[in-house]
Amino acid sequence: MSEALEFASTSAALLEPYLPPVSSQSTAAKPFVTLTFATSLDSSLSLAPGVRTRLSGPGSKAMTHYLRSRHSAILVGINTMLADDPGLNCRIAGASSQPRPIIIDPRLRWVPKRSDKVLQICRAGQGLAPIVLTGLQLEEWPEDSISILTEHGGKFIYVEPKKTASGGRGRFDWHNILDVLSREGLSSLMVEGGAQIINSLLDSQYHSLVDSVIVTIAPTWLGEGGVVVSPARVHDEQGVPIPAARLSDVKWHPFGEDVVLCGRLYKK
Amino acid sequence: MSEALEFASTSAALLEPYLPPVSSQSTAAKPFVTLTFATSLDSSLSLAPGVRTRLSGPGSKAMTHYLRSRHSAILVGINTMLADDPGLNCRIAGASSQPRPIIIDPRLRWVPKRSDKVLQICRAGQGLAPIVLTGLQLEEWPEDSISILTEHGGKFIYVEPKKTASGGRGRFDWHNILDVLSREGLSSLMVEGGAQIINSLLDSQYHSLVDSVIVTIAPTWLGEGGVVVSPARVHDEQGVPIPAARLSDVKWHPFGEDVVLCGRLYKK
Repeated sequence: MSEALEFASTSAALLEPYLPPVSSQSTAAKPFVTLTFATSLDSSLSLAPGVRTRLSGPGSKAMTHYLRSRHSAILVGINTMLADDPGLNCRIAGASSQPRPIIIDPRLRWVPKRSDKVLQICRAGQGLAPIVLTGLQLEEWPEDSISILTEHGGKFIYVEPKKTASGGRGRFDWHNILDVLSREGLSSLMVEGGAQIINSLLDSQYHSLVDSVIVTIAPTWLGEGGVVVSPARVHDEQGVPIPAARLSDVKWHPFGEDVVLCGRLYKK
Repeated sequence: MSEALEFASTSAALLEPYLPPVSSQSTAAKPFVTLTFATSLDSSLSLAPGVRTRLSGPGSKAMTHYLRSRHSAILVGINTMLADDPGLNCRIAGASSQPRPIIIDPRLRWVPKRSDKVLQICRAGQGLAPIVLTGLQLEEWPEDSISILTEHGGKFIYVEPKKTASGGRGRFDWHNILDVLSREGLSSLMVEGGAQIINSLLDSQYHSLVDSVIVTIAPTWLGEGGVVVSPARVHDEQGVPIPAARLSDVKWHPFGEDVVLCGRLYKK
């Protein structure tokens, strides 16, 4: 759990233009947002929902932890939280601070337990306790969950969900998520997954919120039926489909057998 | 139609280890097979079936024509043939010969017309007439199609289709396709698309037939609903899904805004 990772400074230098400013004193209204994930050639994150799939090479893990060291918060969705039991800390050698884990959990499906890895790591002083963003109101939060989260230094925060067509509670608006994180003093956010989170952030309405995209691609096809990154379809004014998202300022960095793609979401 | 394309010799040198031997005198039993195509980050060839989608940058076209200059045959499926009306010739400056177009058309959906681009180009002396591989027997070939194809120097060849579960005529076995091309004296084959052709060749039963894979990836997500490259699911002996295909000897070459991935299909 405490093994330290090394990330070559030459590799770090290649990523630098796509990372938030090193100064932690940010006066920006919105956190710097980096979207990062690893896929197969057929754009799958994993072989099936809930199946953790080793895709990228050994260097990729060190890169992920280096990227975490350069952000004040890291974000995952509830499916990733429940499927992977992730540590959500930074294990890069010499990291001076830990990123704040943010969990998107609209209906509070996560029931925190002392055995959850993220809380174990927190108690060991090797990471921070999560902030859980939920669409449930205070009175709906389970008392046990509140107390275990508070004990570790974490908390729940209410975010108003978007209304669904049927009037029910839907997903969050990314503007609202980033507003909350700003108020928490978090100046940079690394969005890690899973597929629902990534696809929702790649939706054209949110491109202006994303400052950088860093995608690792492994030279593998997982095959049909995987958990796929592919944003919602976009149409032009005549109803003809057009590409959903395009990166600009593109750099491709071969990295072992994988490639790391850095870019910015094209803003029309 | 006759504009000549240039492909930098430095770029060509990077591709060389993945191309068939330059000597055209091949005694190999099987043609050298190169699988090549261009996708988006979400592994789409196009926005929708039959919609030609400009994905890769301007250099990519020259690369495609350079690759054509290095193969004795180029192969497309019937959907690509009907949707794109492709020229299927080589326009690289100084090309000494033209590749033979091979069209996979199990049920003879293509009705050759003198206005088809591939036949226009043939009459202009800028390309060869196609060989059409079909699962229909001689007596089922339309006479007009035979005569127009023969007039241009092309022909139909019968390939026995695989039996479907219901006893009907299914797809071809790639072993049979390559046997036919060997008998035609074609020592190297570039498989260009579309999705059905590519996915069938990426099926694990055919990996040993593929000598090289060259994939161009553009930094764009086309979005859900595109025409996707993703091979059929593979399971291990316990029925657990495993990656469908993995490349070895991998090289990534940034090429304008795109990346060109070269590799060989991993053979177990």
